[in-house]
Amino acid sequence: MRIDLNSDMGESFGAYSLGQDAQVLAHISSANIACGFHAGDPQVMRRTVAMAAARGVAVGAHPGYPDLVGFGRREMACSPDEVTDFVLYQIGAIAAMCRAEGARLHHVKPHGALYNQAARDPALAGAIAAAVRTFDPALFLFAQPGSRLAEAGAAAGLPVAYEAFADRAYNPDGSLVSRRLPGAILHDPAVIVPRLLRLVREGRLQAHDGRDIALEADTICVHGDNAAALAISAAVSTALVAAGVTLAAPGR
Amino acid sequence: MRIDLNSDMGESFGAYSLGQDAQVLAHISSANIACGFHAGDPQVMRRTVAMAAARGVAVGAHPGYPDLVGFGRREMACSPDEVTDFVLYQIGAIAAMCRAEGARLHHVKPHGALYNQAARDPALAGAIAAAVRTFDPALFLFAQPGSRLAEAGAAAGLPVAYEAFADRAYNPDGSLVSRRLPGAILHDPAVIVPRLLRLVREGRLQAHDGRDIALEADTICVHGDNAAALAISAAVSTALVAAGVTLAAPGR
Amino acid sequence: MRIDLNSDMGESFGAYSLGQDAQVLAHISSANIACGFHAGDPQVMRRTVAMAAARGVAVGAHPGYPDLVGFGRREMACSPDEVTDFVLYQIGAIAAMCRAEGARLHHVKPHGALYNQAARDPALAGAIAAAVRTFDPALFLFAQPGSRLAEAGAAAGLPVAYEAFADRAYNPDGSLVSRRLPGAILHDPAVIVPRLLRLVREGRLQAHDGRDIALEADTICVHGDNAAALAISAAVSTALVAAGVTLAAPGR
Amino acid sequence: MRIDLNSDMGESFGAYSLGQDAQVLAHISSANIACGFHAGDPQVMRRTVAMAAARGVAVGAHPGYPDLVGFGRREMACSPDEVTDFVLYQIGAIAAMCRAEGARLHHVKPHGALYNQAARDPALAGAIAAAVRTFDPALFLFAQPGSRLAEAGAAAGLPVAYEAFADRAYNPDGSLVSRRLPGAILHDPAVIVPRLLRLVREGRLQAHDGRDIALEADTICVHGDNAAALAISAAVSTALVAAGVTLAAPGR
Repeated sequence: MRIDLNSDMGESFGAYSLGQDAQVLAHISSANIACGFHAGDPQVMRRTVAMAAARGVAVGAHPGYPDLVGFGRREMACSPDEVTDFVLYQIGAIAAMCRAEGARLHHVKPHGALYNQAARDPALAGAIAAAVRTFDPALFLFAQPGSRLAEAGAAAGLPVAYEAFADRAYNPDGSLVSRRLPGAILHDPAVIVPRLLRLVREGRLQAHDGRDIALEADTICVHGDNAAALAISAAVSTALVAAGVTLAAPGR
Repeated sequence: MRIDLNSDMGESFGAYSLGQDAQVLAHISSANIACGFHAGDPQVMRRTVAMAAARGVAVGAHPGYPDLVGFGRREMACSPDEVTDFVLYQIGAIAAMCRAEGARLHHVKPHGALYNQAARDPALAGAIAAAVRTFDPALFLFAQPGSRLAEAGAAAGLPVAYEAFADRAYNPDGSLVSRRLPGAILHDPAVIVPRLLRLVREGRLQAHDGRDIALEADTICVHGDNAAALAISAAVSTALVAAGVTLAAPGR
Repeated sequence: MRIDLNSDMGESFGAYSLGQDAQVLAHISSANIACGFHAGDPQVMRRTVAMAAARGVAVGAHPGYPDLVGFGRREMACSPDEVTDFVLYQIGAIAAMCRAEGARLHHVKPHGALYNQAARDPALAGAIAAAVRTFDPALFLFAQPGSRLAEAGAAAGLPVAYEAFADRAYNPDGSLVSRRLPGAILHDPAVIVPRLLRLVREGRLQAHDGRDIALEADTICVHGDNAAALAISAAVSTALVAAGVTLAAPGR
Repeated sequence: MRIDLNSDMGESFGAYSLGQDAQVLAHISSANIACGFHAGDPQVMRRTVAMAAARGVAVGAHPGYPDLVGFGRREMACSPDEVTDFVLYQIGAIAAMCRAEGARLHHVKPHGALYNQAARDPALAGAIAAAVRTFDPALFLFAQPGSRLAEAGAAAGLPVAYEAFADRAYNPDGSLVSRRLPGAILHDPAVIVPRLLRLVREGRLQAHDGRDIALEADTICVHGDNAAALAISAAVSTALVAAGVTLAAPGR
């Protein structure tokens, strides 16, 4: 039994500090590092790559929309060509930091609104997959199972890692319950931990309406933005290891 | 006899168009392409790399300060570590565009105030050289002969290409006459062309005060921002070829 | 008989020059000046305000999305509160330039995607109207007749100037034919001039499908981005004046 | 006896939170609010103005260099005209927020590198004073006594408030000891409080070398970036009030 635990990081910027990257790195096997568009700056990127590499955590690009004030969370109407080129730009930039720190770029996970829009828009999904394949067809693409992004990655011949979210409720069709609805976000480690253990062991979890559903997951997203999120990450990591699950980035 | 002709390009941005890249590419052997900090955006970068590669023109990174409104022409007090990291970031980004277009990154030439400050500041020069070497020690670094940047490049083991400027007057010590002084900029192709022919053949030109000086040059910078600049570029290119000089990027 | 002719301007940025503001100012009675988010910078803004004021052209704010690389043309999912605050910010900034140049801010016309989204989204329209009223309830709001923006302006008690477009075809319901459809853009001054004369005299024009429709217009948008657009602007201005129409900003 | 206590604030940006504005507002009489160039965004600006106004704290503009990643702390070589225009832009933007929140703009204090460069560069100092006077000649300009900025403000006919720094050591000539030197920053409230009490009562304090010097101060800068800074601000405020000193913004 094995699974990957991933987390977004490197989202500080200049004088602004965000997240607890050093602590969360102790609990994960792959890191999605912001590339300077929605968050991150060249120094933060390099420092974060160095920290991840020192921990043996796989380094991934976490490209986002060019929208710093919106933290990449606002949907934008960009053309597919624009998206391909700005994803490629961001991958190149983080790959340079990997080279500087003796790391090897392992995967790409789009950020925020870009990830969400690409989950349902085939043109956008194809634009992202094209950027990844152009840069390096061996890079893993992190995408939700059943999403347009997962399909585009597979169509482009990329290795796709199916992503689940530790702290999110699911609809019976395997999609996420909207954040706007009550109960969309899970807060209690006592609920989350057994849920994820079952997901890893059986590939199943309980949907929001109580139904039991199948969900394919290669990697589980955890957070480190605040003390509670970090506690969940630690609890999940510890419980999985205690249960004999190997934490490892896809393909490693 | 051989020389390189280089020009800055890819400096358009979004809806803003600048320069006549397609035309100037007909006259040069290496292109310095802006990387999105002082000018350029991911789409402009990719398009410019494609145009240069299609012409067989060597592609270089043209990194600048993060100062779009100032076009990278304003000196800024950045720390050497910051400079290393933002130069590395920009090199990585343009290298990704090269990979997408089947080109190979050939050289790095800092832009504007970054170039000028690095010519006289050893710490800044070292910071740039460190970024280039970290990314790829086979990349040529374009720098003025006698500058701190040329020295830092050599100290870092990089191949350094000495750069001369087609349209600039020189002081007797081989430095450029300040743009603020009368006669600093040369406008007349009838003056410029024989001057450069002699520079290529004999390694000498006449300084601002009339003295004859030695100047080492591997590459000559020409411009394409306006019709007059483009005419000079065309005249220089044509005259050099007619005189039997091979136009080629350093090392090619 | 009177009408306003308006044009977007002040869209240069740093080293980037866009539009022919000096020329188009000769043909219009109100200027919509970019405020630094989608285009324009503080120096361009001040210079453009000064030019408009010197010509007796009414100065308006032309606020846009914070998206320089997309020139404010990409739709973005911003919250109404965000929009109110960034429109207010931009109005304040251009008002300071007016104060410096002895001009008085006259109107507000949102730019690009912000204008288009506000035409159909009541929340966004209300957010813009709130910003304008907060700053100065005597400012005119330029909006398409029948749009959500026009309604929101009226509901906020603002004087609303209905805007028509010189070079656009109309659907029978008074909305614009989408730019993606053939015939959406009119190019021929010989078609445009009599069409606008009739609009000013009779409040009617021919829709795309040949039907004759009523259209309320207080101000007509013309362009100066290129030679052809400038020629249309000049032809319209000249013909209206020759026909005895007074060109004047709303309320002047 | 009276003095002003001022603090920089409104320096959060988008998803990034910085400072403890709500707490520090309890201890000061005037607030310098970032204007979106080095820090701050339209929503943060408006919220901060509202908080300050609700507390009866005087609202000031805190304009900085257009350098978000550098937090306005890096010196930049801008022309005086550029500086006048971007300071004017920022003042206009914050003045719009004041209007929205029923506050009245009270003063201007340049930020970081802009403040430091203007302390010694007469052209830059004049550029800032020109922007302030152009907007409103009744605005107070905060500047160090003896600085070029204080002189330029006086020459422009502005009311100038001399600023002292609670946590900084002084040279015998009344200038600040460079941050790079040991002892430049004071940390101990037990040292700072009596020192400031004496400054307010007698207009004198002990310089770094032990000499007793005269220092004119109308306003004292305190900080709220972290718990220690906030504790100092609270201690200073409490001690001054206990000693019968009235805390009030200049002119109020």
